[in-house]
Amino acid sequence: MTIFDEATAVTLRADGRYDALPDARFAIVAPGGTTPSAINGGALLATVMRAVLAESPQPHPVATSAHFLRVAAIAPAEVQVTWLKHGRTTSTARGTLVQDGKVILDTTMTVGVVPGPDRAAATAAGHFDVAGHVDGAGHVDGSVGDGSLTWTGPPPGFPAIEDCLDLGKWRGTTGPDGTSGYAAQVEVLMDPATSGWRRDEPSGLPEMRGYFRLRDGQDPDPYVLALALDGLPPVVFGLGATGWAPTVELTWHMRAVPCPGPLAVAARARHVSGGWFDEEAEVWDAAGRLVAQSRQLARVGRGRLRAVANGPAQGVVTG
Amino acid sequence: MTIFDEATAVTLRADGRYDALPDARFAIVAPGGTTPSAINGGALLATVMRAVLAESPQPHPVATSAHFLRVAAIAPAEVQVTWLKHGRTTSTARGTLVQDGKVILDTTMTVGVVPGPDRAAATAAGHFDVAGHVDGAGHVDGSVGDGSLTWTGPPPGFPAIEDCLDLGKWRGTTGPDGTSGYAAQVEVLMDPATSGWRRDEPSGLPEMRGYFRLRDGQDPDPYVLALALDGLPPVVFGLGATGWAPTVELTWHMRAVPCPGPLAVAARARHVSGGWFDEEAEVWDAAGRLVAQSRQLARVGRGRLRAVANGPAQGVVTG
Repeated sequence: MTIFDEATAVTLRADGRYDALPDARFAIVAPGGTTPSAINGGALLATVMRAVLAESPQPHPVATSAHFLRVAAIAPAEVQVTWLKHGRTTSTARGTLVQDGKVILDTTMTVGVVPGPDRAAATAAGHFDVAGHVDGAGHVDGSVGDGSLTWTGPPPGFPAIEDCLDLGKWRGTTGPDGTSGYAAQVEVLMDPATSGWRRDEPSGLPEMRGYFRLRDGQDPDPYVLALALDGLPPVVFGLGATGWAPTVELTWHMRAVPCPGPLAVAARARHVSGGWFDEEAEVWDAAGRLVAQSRQLARVGRGRLRAVANGPAQGVVTG
Repeated sequence: MTIFDEATAVTLRADGRYDALPDARFAIVAPGGTTPSAINGGALLATVMRAVLAESPQPHPVATSAHFLRVAAIAPAEVQVTWLKHGRTTSTARGTLVQDGKVILDTTMTVGVVPGPDRAAATAAGHFDVAGHVDGAGHVDGSVGDGSLTWTGPPPGFPAIEDCLDLGKWRGTTGPDGTSGYAAQVEVLMDPATSGWRRDEPSGLPEMRGYFRLRDGQDPDPYVLALALDGLPPVVFGLGATGWAPTVELTWHMRAVPCPGPLAVAARARHVSGGWFDEEAEVWDAAGRLVAQSRQLARVGRGRLRAVANGPAQGVVTG
């Protein structure tokens, strides 16, 4: 069992009730410091997903929406699972993480079947691949309800992994007692074009790109995808924002079973105002397949604002 | 009261329980034909939103996630509202549409406050507008937790409204008895570049752009936004797919209060496989502000597949 598997494990206690324990090894703020400790949202989401999928008639978390209501304490928790539908193609459940009688994280999951790594590999190159019947006049005819219509948009431009910058084990996630939190479990290798904020030179664009993997070598599965989708720094760091940017709501779609190897993650925002920003992420696997997509709504951090590299003017977007 | 307001109205019956009646005027398949009738998902979503917002401590549906479980009958329904959190910045509730004891539509809504039309107008041009303090060295400093950081990505290219094609009152939404369904209530004016599928010449790209308004002249509000987000034809029509493409899950974010006038809607897919496709939509108001965003996961329709305009090769995307 990997560290991540252990840290997000659940134990059945009663019908639809699971015991869980938010784990300091996935703290984004380690316990013992002056700031209250907090656990990575992706690790909490993976915990709830494990309880729902333990009872699921279909194997894949096709659509998971999660509302983050309160900060989880590093203390015992319960996951409550309620099924709303058992269907032939999809089933839907609510999964809720509760501490002290209060909802920490409320999710709704629709489960189904997505293409496996082999089938997806056949369409990996991003082709418009219609497995229909083409007649003499170039007419494609046939039902596509069987899933034979495949299409993928162009991938974001990822640099080679060896050209990326290791984000390292950043401050705040290791406690005064030496306990290693989230940053010690994951390796994040950033596209240099989206890491100027580390030198106090944000790019002026709300974008982050990089590679993500677990340091202990665990290969991707649906739970690792949930972690990777929110695994890069907040995109608003590219606009000079700093500080913790709490996720309010995150919905993600699993599109294919990932193959082993590092994940490439690209995230961007479309709009920042009123203290809110959206962050859309895509996760591509080592075979070049789009395996997961997410969009979250989050709050801009309350830290100081850095100047963008060439002054705010660089960030002007003209319509 | 407008037709849409009437058709999506709810009446409080007991604590957290509202009566509703899915309305044939928003049928996407009109009753009385050979295919079972079905109601537009946006109208059902608006119905649930009305019940939640009737009790909400904050005014705006900032993040709404909706899982569509079953087809609604044109028959009495109940909306059940359960609050999970009442907070200072956000509150969260579940809102569920139930018929015959079965969940038709399950939503989770986080409510809050987004910029009003006046405030948003100040940043409408897509500027990187930092209301911070710039010192002599060009350094921007200041807390941005108050929402003063604003940024908007470039808008999709919308043609002038007068150059668009009226989708008209399409087949299937008017019943044998003459009852007018969804298509009679909304006006959809399509970008010619994304409407080749109407002439049996799909473009080869999963994109739809157009303008959306209610025929009776109702101005946009949060409920109309929920309708507009899924108001264009399915993006997979651009790849030659046909037939009803049922939404499995849709999450949307309200980003600003819309001003009066038609809404511009742009939607695209990133990936189609295994019978699933994603559809991301943006809604821009008449003042050029991004007011709402959504992403849905849906099933490809089971109709015949049309050839794309220049054969399937046109749709090839090279990485």
